[in-house]
Amino acid sequence: MGIFQRFARLPLKPLCIWSLCPQYSTAFTVGRGLIVRSSQLIQHRYVHSRGLGASPGNLGAAPPRLPFSRVTQEDLAFFKTLLPERTITDPDLLKSCNVDWLKTVEGNSEVLLRPKTTEEVSQILRYCNERNLAVCPQGGNTGLVGGSVPVFDEIILSTSLMNQVITFDNISGILTCQAGCVLENLSNYLEERDFIMPLDLGAKGSCHIGGNVSTNAGGLRLLRYGSLRGTVLGLEVVLADGRVLNCLATLRKDNTGYDLKQLFIGSEGTLGVITAVSILCPRKPRAVNVAFLGCSSFQQLLETFQCCRGMLGEILSAFEFLDASCMSLLKKHLKLTNPITELKILFHTQALWSLRERITEALTHEGYTYKYDISLPVEKIYDLVQDMRGHLGGMAKNVVGYGHVGDGNLHLNITSPSKDPVLLAAIEPYVYEWTSEWKGSISAEHGLGLKKRNYIYYSKPSEAVALMGSIKAMLDPKGILNPYKTLPDHIH
Amino acid sequence: MGIFQRFARLPLKPLCIWSLCPQYSTAFTVGRGLIVRSSQLIQHRYVHSRGLGASPGNLGAAPPRLPFSRVTQEDLAFFKTLLPERTITDPDLLKSCNVDWLKTVEGNSEVLLRPKTTEEVSQILRYCNERNLAVCPQGGNTGLVGGSVPVFDEIILSTSLMNQVITFDNISGILTCQAGCVLENLSNYLEERDFIMPLDLGAKGSCHIGGNVSTNAGGLRLLRYGSLRGTVLGLEVVLADGRVLNCLATLRKDNTGYDLKQLFIGSEGTLGVITAVSILCPRKPRAVNVAFLGCSSFQQLLETFQCCRGMLGEILSAFEFLDASCMSLLKKHLKLTNPITELKILFHTQALWSLRERITEALTHEGYTYKYDISLPVEKIYDLVQDMRGHLGGMAKNVVGYGHVGDGNLHLNITSPSKDPVLLAAIEPYVYEWTSEWKGSISAEHGLGLKKRNYIYYSKPSEAVALMGSIKAMLDPKGILNPYKTLPDHIH
Repeated sequence: MGIFQRFARLPLKPLCIWSLCPQYSTAFTVGRGLIVRSSQLIQHRYVHSRGLGASPGNLGAAPPRLPFSRVTQEDLAFFKTLLPERTITDPDLLKSCNVDWLKTVEGNSEVLLRPKTTEEVSQILRYCNERNLAVCPQGGNTGLVGGSVPVFDEIILSTSLMNQVITFDNISGILTCQAGCVLENLSNYLEERDFIMPLDLGAKGSCHIGGNVSTNAGGLRLLRYGSLRGTVLGLEVVLADGRVLNCLATLRKDNTGYDLKQLFIGSEGTLGVITAVSILCPRKPRAVNVAFLGCSSFQQLLETFQCCRGMLGEILSAFEFLDASCMSLLKKHLKLTNPITELKILFHTQALWSLRERITEALTHEGYTYKYDISLPVEKIYDLVQDMRGHLGGMAKNVVGYGHVGDGNLHLNITSPSKDPVLLAAIEPYVYEWTSEWKGSISAEHGLGLKKRNYIYYSKPSEAVALMGSIKAMLDPKGILNPYKTLPDHIH
Repeated sequence: MGIFQRFARLPLKPLCIWSLCPQYSTAFTVGRGLIVRSSQLIQHRYVHSRGLGASPGNLGAAPPRLPFSRVTQEDLAFFKTLLPERTITDPDLLKSCNVDWLKTVEGNSEVLLRPKTTEEVSQILRYCNERNLAVCPQGGNTGLVGGSVPVFDEIILSTSLMNQVITFDNISGILTCQAGCVLENLSNYLEERDFIMPLDLGAKGSCHIGGNVSTNAGGLRLLRYGSLRGTVLGLEVVLADGRVLNCLATLRKDNTGYDLKQLFIGSEGTLGVITAVSILCPRKPRAVNVAFLGCSSFQQLLETFQCCRGMLGEILSAFEFLDASCMSLLKKHLKLTNPITELKILFHTQALWSLRERITEALTHEGYTYKYDISLPVEKIYDLVQDMRGHLGGMAKNVVGYGHVGDGNLHLNITSPSKDPVLLAAIEPYVYEWTSEWKGSISAEHGLGLKKRNYIYYSKPSEAVALMGSIKAMLDPKGILNPYKTLPDHIH
């Protein structure tokens, strides 16, 4: 097929990759020569038929503040008695918790609470619910949709001090830990014991496992180990009124009643605060094989994927891609080298992965980035990038595509020197309509958070959204948990 | 380790099994010499601490009929207009739908409805909800906990004529079909297209995919392909009031709002009637390898499991076991031969699997069987069988154990010449208390249905059961859907 390829030097096995190794293989493919052609402007032909009333350009903006109570001196006194030294009101310390990692959304909370135990979380929520005080649960604050920072003055409830491993069973591979454990710390803990986490993502150095579960994070190993809906075996959750729901089972199978933990996976802290997680961890692979291939078209990349999938079956851990525009940005901003063109340079496994993992970072140097996280039938994912280039013409600085081919998940990123309402109006709702037309998801793995809440109808029918509203009302009748997030404004 | 072994003759590859074949291996282990010793009687030391009030022996029996309406001539006229020829009132035809496969539970419904479309299901439920008529959804009626037959005069809503494949995408492997498709028919349909279903179970010739999803069936491939919570990508469900909830997505990743389909997976038809399913199907393995091993103790069996798991990783599809007592019953009632002792006989792959799959059938010839489906930490599963033998002494005809070692899932079966209340009182709540003591599940994969509904507190805390009750009340306020099932009596 004329594919250019580079293999990482392998610590355990030499170049026997793509073969019958039963433990781990990672395919990692770079599009090359996907030149932007001046493809014809695609007409704005999609009809937005799902009943959104507001003007499309403003749907991601903050709604008016809801009538929650404001934090009083009496409230602060209560929190300081409950959490001495861990009730933070210093504006300098609060600053980084009020703004998201992308610096695109900023709240003005005046209180940060740092509980260490489930009982403390329970007491905080019971109090806030009685007082009608809104709460924004926060893990590592690495989300991309404005879901983990306050919109107004919500109290920030951080899991950063809930960072203890509770148990690990090295026969079953079941880990039980507090929600604030950093993903990379858990990975290191497990690797020492010959296991790995079933998920991995670029933000691993900061993100918390509780946040991963709350957002149903996908990431780089989903292809092999499946979604958190299968690997999370149990959760402990504190409900809005402070009740503790202990579903911290450590069993692979349990059909006794409704599987309540599923309600809290992916609901972005709007239904309860996850305080502990049980998760099934696979054995550490005995060998890791990484190949970096250069394809001359996306069609060739798809053929390569089909071929690898056929040969490797379930042991294929990841099949990622980035396009030539991503590679240019990695070179320009981070001085990273293209392994396909620079054949004389030796690349280690981690260096190859860095190319994929640091794209988000490279994009932050471009100015402002409009980020989209789209699921589509896999054969369609790159059409969206190319259509968008044609549609935007010279309006955008860059239109780049990368993501998880194996999951049909495209990360479409559009950059601009600064925030640009005209550009935004050209992107949205075009991108959502395009996705809806192909029955895709407008948020494959990032969630809806603040930014995408009002776009939910592009991927879910109105009956489903109404039922989500009923579930929210049942579990959090005062709506204090992460308000303005996930559900569209008319539900709140 | 001194393990006796037999390999099936392999159609595609000769005896290279347990090795680096990347596609499929099935380990299948038979306990041998697990002789029943007169182990000391274990004291009834478990305290039933979760607040069940009623006398333990009666908790599986039918509760009083709830005040639903009774079917009138006007109701029949409505159904006959909606479903001419498919509204069944002939008592002979109704007989087999009123009784479960095990013939342990029998209702007396006078109406069987056989819709072909989602719209018909919607009209039926809208009518029944308005009229306050109770409905028992029924698939292949192969359940083991009395969940799929009426308790009193509930209308039986059968999916047997909803048996059409809607779409199959042979790139992604995503199948979308009506709920009444028989699992084996779907398997055959897929095999012709070089794919397989991600689940397989002994009842495959009769069970419906809708019933599989409604009961979150586990079965023989869970170890490799994961649970239905990961492989089911979308559902269409008719709610109690007739509203159709179309969540029939065909995407591997979709984080747009709460994952509503999870509510209907495993809720045994008590929250809605599943009418269509989208499911992710793996490629057909290029080789199937089956080994049948004889171990001299359960400890040796566990060591074998650990060893296979380490060598084979995720390509191990199943690791099943049966004990020597099961093998005796297979020989006695079905004339099946032990492959470990009869070394001169050639066994084909399917013959080896039949031994495992026909245990349930062999047990039916024993008289009456008390069946338990328990999840425990894997190293504990056979202790329960041995403890139970000691506990029951000569009261039971047979105490046998088999199941899914890889999932920590034991099928404990206790036989008796006929129904025996004294024996039952010796088994329950002992078996549930034993399980609860080890934080196991009292129903790993069979569900709770009618028989186990009141035992839910052994595996779920009261806050969780209360929340399940709230969900039921939200989705089915009149309680017409599969009443008397899944949730304990005080919730209904």
